[in-house]
Amino acid sequence: MGHRDGSVDFKINLHKVYQAIEEADFFAIDGEFSGISDGPSVTALTSGFDTPEERYQKLKKHSMDFLLFQFGLCAFKYDHTDSKHVTKSFNFYVFPKPFSRSSPDVKFVCQSSSIDFLASQGFDFNKVFCSGIPYLNQEEERQLREQFDEKRSQANGAGALAKCPVTIPEDQKKFIDQVMFQRKLIYQTLSWKYPKGIHVETLETDKKERHIVISKVDEEERKRREQEKYTKEQEELNDAVGFSRVIHAIANSGKLVVGHNMLLDVMHTIHQFYCPLPADLNEFKEMAICVFPRLLDTKLMASTQPFKDIINNTSLAELEKRLKETPFDPPKVESAEGFPSYDTASEQLHEAGYDAYITGLCFISMANYLGSLLSPPKMCVSARSKLIEPFFNKLFLMRVMDIPYLNLEGPDLQPKRDHVLHVTFPKEWKTSDLYQLFSAFGNIQISWIDDTSAFVSLSQPEQVQIAVNTSKYAESYRIQTYAEYVGKKQEGKQVKRKWTEDSWKEVDRKRPHMQGPCYHSNSFTAAGVVGKRTLSPDPREAALEDRESEEVSDSELEQTDSCTDPLPEGRKKSKKLKRTKKELSLAGSVSDSPAVLFEVPDTW
Amino acid sequence: MGHRDGSVDFKINLHKVYQAIEEADFFAIDGEFSGISDGPSVTALTSGFDTPEERYQKLKKHSMDFLLFQFGLCAFKYDHTDSKHVTKSFNFYVFPKPFSRSSPDVKFVCQSSSIDFLASQGFDFNKVFCSGIPYLNQEEERQLREQFDEKRSQANGAGALAKCPVTIPEDQKKFIDQVMFQRKLIYQTLSWKYPKGIHVETLETDKKERHIVISKVDEEERKRREQEKYTKEQEELNDAVGFSRVIHAIANSGKLVVGHNMLLDVMHTIHQFYCPLPADLNEFKEMAICVFPRLLDTKLMASTQPFKDIINNTSLAELEKRLKETPFDPPKVESAEGFPSYDTASEQLHEAGYDAYITGLCFISMANYLGSLLSPPKMCVSARSKLIEPFFNKLFLMRVMDIPYLNLEGPDLQPKRDHVLHVTFPKEWKTSDLYQLFSAFGNIQISWIDDTSAFVSLSQPEQVQIAVNTSKYAESYRIQTYAEYVGKKQEGKQVKRKWTEDSWKEVDRKRPHMQGPCYHSNSFTAAGVVGKRTLSPDPREAALEDRESEEVSDSELEQTDSCTDPLPEGRKKSKKLKRTKKELSLAGSVSDSPAVLFEVPDTW
Repeated sequence: MGHRDGSVDFKINLHKVYQAIEEADFFAIDGEFSGISDGPSVTALTSGFDTPEERYQKLKKHSMDFLLFQFGLCAFKYDHTDSKHVTKSFNFYVFPKPFSRSSPDVKFVCQSSSIDFLASQGFDFNKVFCSGIPYLNQEEERQLREQFDEKRSQANGAGALAKCPVTIPEDQKKFIDQVMFQRKLIYQTLSWKYPKGIHVETLETDKKERHIVISKVDEEERKRREQEKYTKEQEELNDAVGFSRVIHAIANSGKLVVGHNMLLDVMHTIHQFYCPLPADLNEFKEMAICVFPRLLDTKLMASTQPFKDIINNTSLAELEKRLKETPFDPPKVESAEGFPSYDTASEQLHEAGYDAYITGLCFISMANYLGSLLSPPKMCVSARSKLIEPFFNKLFLMRVMDIPYLNLEGPDLQPKRDHVLHVTFPKEWKTSDLYQLFSAFGNIQISWIDDTSAFVSLSQPEQVQIAVNTSKYAESYRIQTYAEYVGKKQEGKQVKRKWTEDSWKEVDRKRPHMQGPCYHSNSFTAAGVVGKRTLSPDPREAALEDRESEEVSDSELEQTDSCTDPLPEGRKKSKKLKRTKKELSLAGSVSDSPAVLFEVPDTW
Repeated sequence: MGHRDGSVDFKINLHKVYQAIEEADFFAIDGEFSGISDGPSVTALTSGFDTPEERYQKLKKHSMDFLLFQFGLCAFKYDHTDSKHVTKSFNFYVFPKPFSRSSPDVKFVCQSSSIDFLASQGFDFNKVFCSGIPYLNQEEERQLREQFDEKRSQANGAGALAKCPVTIPEDQKKFIDQVMFQRKLIYQTLSWKYPKGIHVETLETDKKERHIVISKVDEEERKRREQEKYTKEQEELNDAVGFSRVIHAIANSGKLVVGHNMLLDVMHTIHQFYCPLPADLNEFKEMAICVFPRLLDTKLMASTQPFKDIINNTSLAELEKRLKETPFDPPKVESAEGFPSYDTASEQLHEAGYDAYITGLCFISMANYLGSLLSPPKMCVSARSKLIEPFFNKLFLMRVMDIPYLNLEGPDLQPKRDHVLHVTFPKEWKTSDLYQLFSAFGNIQISWIDDTSAFVSLSQPEQVQIAVNTSKYAESYRIQTYAEYVGKKQEGKQVKRKWTEDSWKEVDRKRPHMQGPCYHSNSFTAAGVVGKRTLSPDPREAALEDRESEEVSDSELEQTDSCTDPLPEGRKKSKKLKRTKKELSLAGSVSDSPAVLFEVPDTW
C-alpha cells in the first residue's frame, strides 16, 4: 500500500510545521469539508434575519456531523532584508483513523453535492481515506493518556496485587481457559513469584502473532526497559493525537489567524480537535477566543469600510484578483525553500493550502492599503499593527441582512428591525406572490424562512403598521411585526429553557481544557471587551447586504459565494460563472435597512 | 479530470452487462458499504436472542444511512460443450451524484473503521467519489420522469398558455428583470406571436454560457427537432437512473441470485435502488421476494446439513478454501473473453466483484456435492435443480443462537427459548461476573443485550425456575424468564403501535412499483409457502450456534466473520487471523439449545 504512509510523512515533517508556526508573523487557514448542511434547505438554514444565536444553533445542529478532511495552513513571515513575505504552506489531509480497538469509531456524514464538487476540482479522496492524518480531541486524548497510565501502574504495581494470587474456582476452569486470562495469570504469577529480576512483555510479530517474552534481568536493565517502553508509549500517544498537535501549536502561539468567511472553519476546527461545540453562542465565543485569541476574517474586512466602496465582489477568488489592481498593491511574496510555490495566475482554488495562501495575500494587501491611507503613508503594515485591530475576532455572517459579523469579543449588534415583517402563507406561494402582496410598498426585501413563512423588510418603518393593519382580515396569509414574532418565539424558548437547564450545566462542565493562552475572562461585558471601537449605525453599509443577496440569490450556502450558478443546494464552494451585469442586479433592489459599522479610527 | 468518465464507461458497456444478465444461469452478488452500524455497540445491535423482527428493525435503523458504494456482480453460464462454467464479473462503483439542481442531494454516513479497513485492502475511493455511477430509486425516477413530461407539455402547450401574455405591474419592473423571467417572457411572447414556424431552445456553450436560440422552421423540421429533443431527454433520464438499471435487469430476469451472508446486501440494494425499507419485517419480506424472487445464501447453505458436519468455518475465504478439498470437487470455471479472470490462489478479497465470483464458486461446489449424494450421482447440478430449492429465500442470521435464517417466504422459526433467562445487573458487571453468578448451573451461554442486561441460556430448561427463585431476594441483579421478558416488551409495543398506526399505513402506500416478476402473493401462509419442506427441531444443529459464537466472540458485526481479531467495533469484514484452537474454544461451551433444520429430501 504505497499511499498508506500519510501519518509517517506527517511524523517526519512535524518539526517543519512547528518551526513554521514558531517563526511566523501570522497564519492563514482554510478547511474543506465532506458536506455543508445536513438539514433543512439551505435557505432555511441561513435566513436573512437570523440572530447570531439562531445562526450558531443552525450551523451547530446541521453542519457539525460533516468531516473537516483537508486543512490548509499557510505561515507568513516578513523578511525585512528583502522586504518580502516568505510563506510556508501545508495541505493536511486528516481522517479519524481508529487508533486501537478501544478508540472511538467516528461516524461522519458526506453530502453528495459537496463530494461531487470536490471531485470535479480534482480532490484526492484516497489521500484522505487511505493516508489521512489521525487526530484526537481533548477528551479522547485524556482517555488514552489515562489508559496508558493505568496500564503502567498495573505493571508497576503488579507485584503488590499479585501477592495474593488469584484463586480459581473449580467450575470456572473452562472459562479461565481464555487467553486473556492466561496472559493475566502468567503476568501475575511471574511478578508474584519473581518480584524482581524478571522482565515480562508481549511482543507482536509481523504476522500479528503475539508472544509473551520473559527475560531475566537485573534491576538496572529492568528500569532501562521500563523507560524504553514508556518512551514508546508516549510516541504512540503522540501519533494518535496526530494532527490535533498542529492545531494546538497554532493555538498556543497566540498569533493572528486569518481566514476567509471563516465561521464554519473555526466551528469545525474546535469541534473536531478540541471538543463538541457548547450549547449556546456565548460559551462558543469564550471557547473560540481561548483557542484562537486573534482571528481575522478577510471577507468581513473586504465588506467593511474603507474597502467596501472599492471592492465589489468579496468571494475569495474575485477578491484576490481585485487586490492586484489599484489602489491596491500586490505584496512581494515568496515561498520558503522546499515549500510549494503557488502561482495565482493558474488558480488551484479549493485546495485548502492554496485557499489559505491567497487568503493571506488578501489580508496583506488590505492591511497595506490601510497603511497607505496614513500620513505619512506606511508601506508595510504588520500583523501586530493597531490598524487591523478593529477587524479582530469579528467573523463574517453569511446572508444576514443587517448584522455583518459575529462578535467573538462581546455581545452582538442588535439591529432594530422595526421595518421587518414576519409573513405566514400557503406553501404554494412563490417569491412573486410576496412581491405582489407588497406591491403598494415600493422596494421590499424578502428573506425566506421556510416553505410557509418569510421575513419581508419594507423601506420605511412607518409602513409596517399599515401592512399589519391591512392584513387583519386576510385569510390566506398572516402578517406580524418582527418584534411580535420574536416575542412569541422567546415565550416558547423560555419554556424549553426550563426543561434543559440541567443539560446546559452538563455542557458547562465539559468545557475543554485550553492549552493555549487565554486572553479572555469567563464573563465579559460589552464595554470592556469592545474596547476602543464604537459601534454606530451607518446607512452606507446597506450596500453590503445588496452584495450578499446578489451572491446568494440561489438557495446556496456558499463559503466563497461568488455564485448564482444553479448548483444543487448545499454545495460548499462555487464554480466560477461569467454573469452579465443584468443577472447580478436580479435580487438587487437597494435595501434601506439600517446596518452597523465600526468607526474608522482617526489615524486612518 | 481523467477519472471522471465512470458513467461514460458504464453507458458504453451497459449492453455487455445486459447481455451477461440475459444469458446467465445465475448470478452472485456482493456489496461493499461505507459503514456497518451507526448506532449502539455492535453487541447490542446483534444480540444472540434477537427475534428476526428485532434484527430487521435494528439493521434498518442503524445500517441504512451508509452507502453501498461498490456492487459486485458475477454472471455464471454453463457451457455444456466444454463442461465448464463461464463467468462475467463486474465491479460497479456507485455514487449518488446529483443529476441536476433539483435532484436529491443524498447524505450518507461513513464509519471510520469501515473506511480504514477498505483503505487497508487497497480500495480506490476516487473511483467511487470521482467516477461512481449515479442511480435513482423508483420514486426519484418517477419524479424526474414527471419533470420531463411537465417541461414537454409546457413547451407543447405554451401557445395556449401564452395567448394571454403576462401583464407586468409597474412596480414589478425591477423584479422581472430576472433572467429567469426574461427567458420565460421570451419563450411565451415568441410562441404567442409565432404559434407556428418557430423553434426556441436554450443551449449551453462549453463555457457554461447559456443562449436562447430562435430559429425559423417549417412544421416538419419543428417536429423533427422536438423528437430529437425527446430522445435526448430520454437518454438523460436513463443516465440519471444509471446503475439502478442493472439492478432492475437482475430483478426482471427472475434468475437465482446468490450471496454470502447477504441480508445486509439485500436490504441495502432495495433501500438504495428501489425505495426506503418498509416499517415492518413482513412487508420487507414481500418486497425482497418481489425484487429478487430467488435468493440463496451460501453462508446459510454451508451452515446447514449435509454441509455443516464437514465445513468448520463458514467465512467466505475459508469456505472457498475448504470447498477445494475432498469430498468437494472444485468446478471448472473460466472467465469469458474480455472479462477479468480472478485467481483464487492470490486472493483479492473485499473487491466486490471478486467476492461475488468466489461466492458463485462456493455455490457451485456445494450444489454439485448435493448431486454427488444422489444415486446415481449427478455430476453437475444446475441453478434450477430441485436439490437446491430447500435453500431458496432463507437468509443467514448473524449471531442469532437458535434461528439460523430469516425466512423470506413465510413466518420465521419460533424457538421456545424456555431455557433462556433475561438478567439485569449493574453496569460494572463483566462476563466473568455472570459466569460466577451461574456457576452452579454448569454450562451456560451468555448473549449481551447492553451494558446492564444479557440473555443467559442454561443447559436444562428445568434450571430456569430454580435460577428465578434463587434470585428473588437479590438486590444487585434481577432475573426473569425469556417468556416474561417478551411479555413485558410486547405490552410496551402494543401501546407504541397504537400511536404509530397511521404512519404504518403511510409506508404501505409507498410500496415500490415492482418492475420484476412477482411470484409472491400479498398475503402468505406458512403452510402454503414453505411447501415441500417440513420444519423440525434438531438438536444436531446446535453446533451451528457454536461456530457462530466463536466467530463473533468479540463485539463484531462481521459479514464474513472469520474473525476474533481485535478490530474496532463495526468493521465490516475481517482480517484473517491465525488463531489457536484454544482461542477458538473460549466462548465455545456446547449449547444444548434446540435449533431447527429443514428435513433433507429422500432423494439426497
